[in-house]
Amino acid sequence: MVPSAVPSTGPSAGQDLSLTAQAIEHRMEEIGRANGTSNGDHKPAPKELDASKLTYTFTKSPREVPPPGVDSVDGSTICTDHMISVPWSQKNGWSTPELKPYGPISLMPTASVLHYATECFEGLKAYRGFDGKLRIFRPDCNSARMLQSSVRISLPSFPPAELQKLILALIAVDGPKWLPRERPGTFMYLRPTMIGTQSQLGVTAPMEALLYIILSFMPVLDSPAGGMKLHTSPDDMVRAWVGGFGYAKVGANYGPSLLATHEAKSRGYQQVIWLYGKEGYCTEAGASNFFVVMKTKEGKTQIVTAPLDDRLILDGVTRRSTLQLVRERCRDEVEVVERSYTIDEVMEADSEGRLVEAFAAGTAFFICPVSLIHHRGRDVAIPMGKAGAGGHYTQLIKGWLRDIMYGRVEHPWGVVVQEQQ
Amino acid sequence: MVPSAVPSTGPSAGQDLSLTAQAIEHRMEEIGRANGTSNGDHKPAPKELDASKLTYTFTKSPREVPPPGVDSVDGSTICTDHMISVPWSQKNGWSTPELKPYGPISLMPTASVLHYATECFEGLKAYRGFDGKLRIFRPDCNSARMLQSSVRISLPSFPPAELQKLILALIAVDGPKWLPRERPGTFMYLRPTMIGTQSQLGVTAPMEALLYIILSFMPVLDSPAGGMKLHTSPDDMVRAWVGGFGYAKVGANYGPSLLATHEAKSRGYQQVIWLYGKEGYCTEAGASNFFVVMKTKEGKTQIVTAPLDDRLILDGVTRRSTLQLVRERCRDEVEVVERSYTIDEVMEADSEGRLVEAFAAGTAFFICPVSLIHHRGRDVAIPMGKAGAGGHYTQLIKGWLRDIMYGRVEHPWGVVVQEQQ
Repeated sequence: MVPSAVPSTGPSAGQDLSLTAQAIEHRMEEIGRANGTSNGDHKPAPKELDASKLTYTFTKSPREVPPPGVDSVDGSTICTDHMISVPWSQKNGWSTPELKPYGPISLMPTASVLHYATECFEGLKAYRGFDGKLRIFRPDCNSARMLQSSVRISLPSFPPAELQKLILALIAVDGPKWLPRERPGTFMYLRPTMIGTQSQLGVTAPMEALLYIILSFMPVLDSPAGGMKLHTSPDDMVRAWVGGFGYAKVGANYGPSLLATHEAKSRGYQQVIWLYGKEGYCTEAGASNFFVVMKTKEGKTQIVTAPLDDRLILDGVTRRSTLQLVRERCRDEVEVVERSYTIDEVMEADSEGRLVEAFAAGTAFFICPVSLIHHRGRDVAIPMGKAGAGGHYTQLIKGWLRDIMYGRVEHPWGVVVQEQQ
Repeated sequence: MVPSAVPSTGPSAGQDLSLTAQAIEHRMEEIGRANGTSNGDHKPAPKELDASKLTYTFTKSPREVPPPGVDSVDGSTICTDHMISVPWSQKNGWSTPELKPYGPISLMPTASVLHYATECFEGLKAYRGFDGKLRIFRPDCNSARMLQSSVRISLPSFPPAELQKLILALIAVDGPKWLPRERPGTFMYLRPTMIGTQSQLGVTAPMEALLYIILSFMPVLDSPAGGMKLHTSPDDMVRAWVGGFGYAKVGANYGPSLLATHEAKSRGYQQVIWLYGKEGYCTEAGASNFFVVMKTKEGKTQIVTAPLDDRLILDGVTRRSTLQLVRERCRDEVEVVERSYTIDEVMEADSEGRLVEAFAAGTAFFICPVSLIHHRGRDVAIPMGKAGAGGHYTQLIKGWLRDIMYGRVEHPWGVVVQEQQ
């Protein structure tokens, strides 16, 4: 937290310190207030998001499923036949959710999202298992995080369980055709999105919004040839900051980072590793969480990642799952440490032969081995294991998660979708 | 700047520090490269933005001009009959600019702007002068800033003079009807906007974009009854940070700030005054620049505002004009100071009777007197002048600018529009 310059005095001083926290609390309270109960003056209360009311309008122009490995055409992401769409207004609350043919969204040029970045999203994958079943991974986590992001960016609140039901409803309809049983071991990418649609140029929270869910193809990003190469962020670009919104999956975290990423790519690196503060704390790698396996000076093996408490980084579902599995399954051989650590520490570990391995973790990049970090003119090579596909722990964690996602083991995180045939 | 943890070593260390600056340089170079000249392999070079090619498609359903004072209908901003629209693609460059009927924009659900906040804008007003002429104020400044913002958010570059010509073309067509000679002393609001339109979910710079310009009504915001009341930002929300993008007019600066502003409004304050760092530096008031007039302990009168060098604040056109006019016209009685100053200093000046006046400055709020700052449980009342409409300098500066905008004096900043009759 950034401390205030003036000591708190007076009755409302404490309240003034947590303006944002209280605003979030007020928005969250709306979930409880909505639905059914009318207020004193006989106006109907705004309606809550209700997945059970979902209507289905099926496409009359079904499209062809692309061959395996094709995810876009002419630079456009390929999506499935349908999408789910739910308008919201402050006055009426959530409209009836609709599953309908995939197609363009019409916005007035004055729409809030086009000017003030009133937008947030989620990303999760649907997996066609080796047992033939269709699964999604911990959708409860994504649905809960979508609520956090939505409220942070002044978009409406909703019960996360209803969002999860809508996500399942879309994949239930389009999964059988687009992620067919004949392609076990493949995945698609779900993108729940919320945007501020009010046609109003004033800098104010939008009174109209649209929640939509689409299902798309995405390339496999977890095994680049030779591993992922990272370039540390420059002094003139800081991704997120204490008191900011680095923890939320809002558009405002992404657009501003593209410039440095593009420049790093032109120099031969795939992603930027974002440093923070004069200490150079490692936070995220690209739009993924970042893990380093190092030995301590005493020879103890640690798997280290940035902490959540300063709200600089995304509370990643893959990050959380990684931490939990390592804690459960190899507590005795490796210590899990969530703490602030600097690029200096990583470079020191390298120069002392204590750097074991490193990987990025996220839904898009899954568990992706990192082979190199470039920092201020120096290259740090990171061991990639005997087969060159990532170190021992990188491969171990990847295998554990893959087994859950593709149904090689039964696990509560792998939620089976009841497909509509 | 946030210093790096590790001292620069090796040949490319300096280059690594300025990744963003170099990325911006590369984007700027595109302006020179585009247009006419083909590269070696006979592909035509991408086309530059060219206002001279503007085509005109006039509306067949002209709408009615609202009565004076009406700027929106059912929460939607009222715009004029036409807009200007120019698509861009990395491959082909800028398409032919088109003036066409105002109407919705169609975007695929995967469009970059809806997910990654690849968007920026400008705001400037068109003024119907007391001499009957139509003017805009320093459009060269807005056009140049739009280029800075566009490049910062990984949208295309363009020659600012071409944007300025397009702005003038729209107001030339819609000005005569929508800002008629019978309403001298009134204004409308121009909003040039750029959005990333590529239908691609990857976190990458969009290869397609759309520039559009709209002309809308906006309420008068510069004279709220009793003056503008400000609430200092909480510890848990920092608007912009060193190494960030506070200086750019990108959507990512606005959406995240709405939450605290909404909460401040619900407590009876109109805007948030954004503090920075543990020192509590005053940066902006709402989405405007902020000025304080204080006497020094030695009795000298100073007009103080935050500096531009750390790139935390917007380089406002009204801010810049204010500084220049005060320096030109009352150098002997008041000293103009651009420096970092803290909320503590303002509160100390108040308690010692040295706080003279304060105002917000920007296109939307124009020069708006500030009557109160609430900070950590304490209220600081700020003198509002004898008539209660703002202090001496607030009123003086407002008058100077108004005279230029509405043609009471001839001044190079007031650019006369050649109207199409």
